[in-house]
Parts: sequence; C-alpha cells; structure tokens
Amino acid sequence: MGADGQLLSRSEYRTEARRGPAAVLAAVERAIRDVTAPLEAPSSIGLACAGQIHPATGTVVYAPNLGWHDVPVAAPLQAAFGVPVTVENDVRAAAWGEFRFGAGRSVRSLLAVFVGTGVGSGAVLDGALWRGAGNAAGEIGHTQVVVDGLPCVCGRRGCLEQYASGSGFQRRLREALGGGAPTRLVEFTHGDPTRLTASMVAAAAEGDGLARVLWSDATRYLAMALANYVTLLNPEALILGGGVVETVPALFDALVPAVTELTTVLARGSLSIKRAELGDWSGVLGAAALALARDADR
Amino acid sequence: MGADGQLLSRSEYRTEARRGPAAVLAAVERAIRDVTAPLEAPSSIGLACAGQIHPATGTVVYAPNLGWHDVPVAAPLQAAFGVPVTVENDVRAAAWGEFRFGAGRSVRSLLAVFVGTGVGSGAVLDGALWRGAGNAAGEIGHTQVVVDGLPCVCGRRGCLEQYASGSGFQRRLREALGGGAPTRLVEFTHGDPTRLTASMVAAAAEGDGLARVLWSDATRYLAMALANYVTLLNPEALILGGGVVETVPALFDALVPAVTELTTVLARGSLSIKRAELGDWSGVLGAAALALARDADR
Repeated sequence: MGADGQLLSRSEYRTEARRGPAAVLAAVERAIRDVTAPLEAPSSIGLACAGQIHPATGTVVYAPNLGWHDVPVAAPLQAAFGVPVTVENDVRAAAWGEFRFGAGRSVRSLLAVFVGTGVGSGAVLDGALWRGAGNAAGEIGHTQVVVDGLPCVCGRRGCLEQYASGSGFQRRLREALGGGAPTRLVEFTHGDPTRLTASMVAAAAEGDGLARVLWSDATRYLAMALANYVTLLNPEALILGGGVVETVPALFDALVPAVTELTTVLARGSLSIKRAELGDWSGVLGAAALALARDADR
Repeated sequence: MGADGQLLSRSEYRTEARRGPAAVLAAVERAIRDVTAPLEAPSSIGLACAGQIHPATGTVVYAPNLGWHDVPVAAPLQAAFGVPVTVENDVRAAAWGEFRFGAGRSVRSLLAVFVGTGVGSGAVLDGALWRGAGNAAGEIGHTQVVVDGLPCVCGRRGCLEQYASGSGFQRRLREALGGGAPTRLVEFTHGDPTRLTASMVAAAAEGDGLARVLWSDATRYLAMALANYVTLLNPEALILGGGVVETVPALFDALVPAVTELTTVLARGSLSIKRAELGDWSGVLGAAALALARDADR
C-alpha cells in the first residue's frame, strides 16, 4: 500500500497454521519478500493476526484458534526487514479496513461485527480504533444474551457465540445428535457436525425442527446483541461481515429491521446498517493502513 | 468552581419542575446570582439537566421526566449573564464529575452507571466523554436483557429498566396487585405502588415471593447488562451510583462478584468496580468542569 493508501500489489498465500509458529512466520516473511520484490522497499509492515496481540510489542499473547501462546511476531519480522512492524488483532484490523476503505469510509464512528466461526467486533469512535484499557474491547461474541443459557467454551453461559456462529451451530448439532433428535442436518453433514455450515442451517430452516430453532435463535440473539451495542455506543454505522453474513444473504436482510426495531429511537435515528465490502481483505488493508498511520506519527 | 477545579461555593435549591420551564429557568437564574454574588463574575456557566440536550445549542430537546419539549436553556441564561453556558445531560455530567473528582479520578476510561428511577450511564474513553454520533449513547436502561421480556415504556420489550430500577419495581408491583398476588409489599406501601422503594424490595426479599423475584431479577439482569457493557468496552473502572445503589448497600456487594464472573477474563483483568463518590453532586461538579473545559478551549 502506498503512502496515500492506494493498493500497489496483492497476493494470497496459505499460512498452514498447523505447521507451527516458526513455519508460519517463515511463510509470512517469504510472502512479504515476494509481494514487495518489484516495488520500493517498504517503510513499514502491517500484519493482522487472530488472537490477543500485545499492543506495544506485537507479540501474540494468546490465539486459541492457532494454538499460540506468547509468540513474538513483530520482532522477528522487524529484524528481517529492518522496518517497523505493526501487528493488530484481525477483527480490529478488519474494522479499521472497512472504516478506511470499505462500508465505513464516509463515517467517523462505526461498529463492525463479523459473524463467522466466532463473533467478533471492532469499534471506531470519532475516527480512532477503540482497543479498550486492557486491549480486550469488542468481544461481542462473549456478551450474554440468555441468563444461565447454553454453556460456552469460555466457561460462562449464554454467550452470543453459542447461538449465532459457525462453531455454535456445530456444537448444538453435536449435542442434538447425542440426544438422538431427528434432523435433516444429519444428511446434510453426513452425520459429521464439523461439516455443518450456516448455509445448511438456513437452507433446512423451513422444514426441519432443529434447523428452525438454530436459525431463529441466531437471528433473534444477534439482533438483540447488535441493538444493545448500538444503543450503548450510538455509532453512525453498523457494519456486518464475516463468513456467516456473506454466505447467507437472508441473514443481513432479517437483521436490518430486527436491529432497528430493538435499538432506542434516538440511536437508530442516526444509524445506517451496511454489509462489509472488503471480504477477507478488510483485515489486510486495515493492518496496512494502521502501519502507515504509525509511520506518519513517527 | 475555580479555573483549577476547586469548589468555591455550593448551594441547593428546589427547581419545582411542575411549575413549568419558565419558572424553573427563573429559579436557576436566581440561584446562579445568589451563589456567585460574593465571588468574581463567572466566566462560564455549566448546567446538568435531565433529558436529551442538543449539544450545540444547549436546548432541552426532550425530557420525559420534566415533560419538556424543545426548551432553550443555554440561550436565556447566556442572555442573562453574558457568558457561555454549557448544558449537559445529567447522567453524562455525573459520569464526568466522577471522572474528574470522584471514584474515577485515577483512570482514563470508565463506565458510570446510575440506577435510580431509571438506569442511565455515561462513558469516558481515553479521557473524553463519549456522547455518540447522534448524542444518544449510554442508554443502558434500554438495552434488552430478556428476548420478548416485560413491555417497557419505550415501546420495546425486555429492557433492563423494567427489571432493575425504581420505576420498574413500581410497575411490577402494580401489575402483581392487579393480578391479586399476595405480597408483604402491600403493607410496606399501604397498597400504593408509587410508594415502593428499592429498600422495601430488598428488605422483603427474604420472606416474600414477589419481593424475592423482583430483587433477584434486578441483581441478575443488572449484572448481565453491566458485564456486557464492560466486555464490549473494556474500561479501567465501572462506577455504580444512583438512588437504588446508595440506599441498598447489599446491591453493590452482590454486583461486584456477579459482574466480574460474567465479564470476559481479559476485560475483568484490568477492571475495578467502585461505588460513585459524589452522590447528587456528581452532575453539578461534572457540568461545571465541562463548562470550564470549554472555556479553556476558547
């Protein structure tokens, strides 16, 4: 990305996370060399990474999906390229990407919520990314939507993620199968809950009892959690993205009126609800823009 | 308040809101003259007022508790005293007061939640009051805690305020009396639900079915809504105040562990939960400090 934000080059590589942090970092280093080879040497590097990132050191403190604990990411790349490296949580980087280049480029404050395997969010308030006092803000997937509800992997109960995410759907199907409940989702997934997708749930929701419950829970609890978020923060835009939102267009169409109705009249008055525009690229572009912004501050 | 924030003089007056906006504003004007008479003429005036305040004009757009619609407040006082007048919503002013002079004076980010007749809140993020894009942020009393729950005066259902506020308690007692449910709260209130206080509910909760339900609902749904707020914003401090919190010390003691348990591990790690320290004065001091800050910006 050039200093004025235009994209100079883009490529995709597989990180193959199961090969461990060292292999992933080596692959990232090669990818950066490939991408930047035909260009001027970069003045800084921005990375979006799943998990909790230490804001000062660029170390991945903990990334459950990668299985990483205390993995320095910025430091080795900084050593390899001799330029500053900014590492940002992928969801926050994606929110920043949508703010700078996507569905939020005309507003000063937004909430970007991504519904996929989990549910995460990033908030831009008055043009600045809000990370929280302990770098932990935005975990909407672990806000409670049901008192004493379904148990969550986080150890608490009733978290949104159990009702409205790919992993939540799979967990509920697994339990239903254990209980012997009849459902067409068995055929769809050939009896393997890890094959269940949001599209399957949505497609089966008409005629299947379990699928109908999963889908209506997802819609109503997402609407409630999103409306509460908007009521509390009163942003100009609510941007919805992530795999579940992208693969099931009906979800967004259902959420727009439901969220509007559940939001306070004043907070909904200044709100527009939009689809994310950048897909998988939001995090990449956001991280690059954050690195450039740090550059400009130096 | 002096330019460095020290209190020079304080007095209390009754506004007698039922006499209407003109009488209230005349009383406010007299009060300001009385308070400032022995001092230098003020360089600016700050007012905290219930309701939605237009941030630029200082007009009360709508204040349901006062019954005011579009009442200019800053303009007439500005004309009377010839100095800038800052009008801020009372809850936000109170949050600012606690941030500057009270329980939040050692932090940079906080959520201040006040539980009284209603439930309201103000957020200070990185040292700045967050008002929202449409000046509507912080309405935690109208976040939903129960899907399709109790009907609320706002027209929606399941709002926190119905489960955990003075007005919510009274409404539920009124309905219970209509349904003929036996409860000791009838004696406590002499059959008049408008006499019901949070202290009565708490005092009767041991041996009375209805009081027990009201009290446990208030505690659990407050804990849930507060924990969700903290999980989303990850502030350094959560400050709890308002009439219900002040008159029933057991509520705060119950909320501290309950909120902590329901908050994500990372967000609770950097959190301290505190009682508000300034009582009714938080809004007054906050409004004065906001006026002084605007002064300094000029």
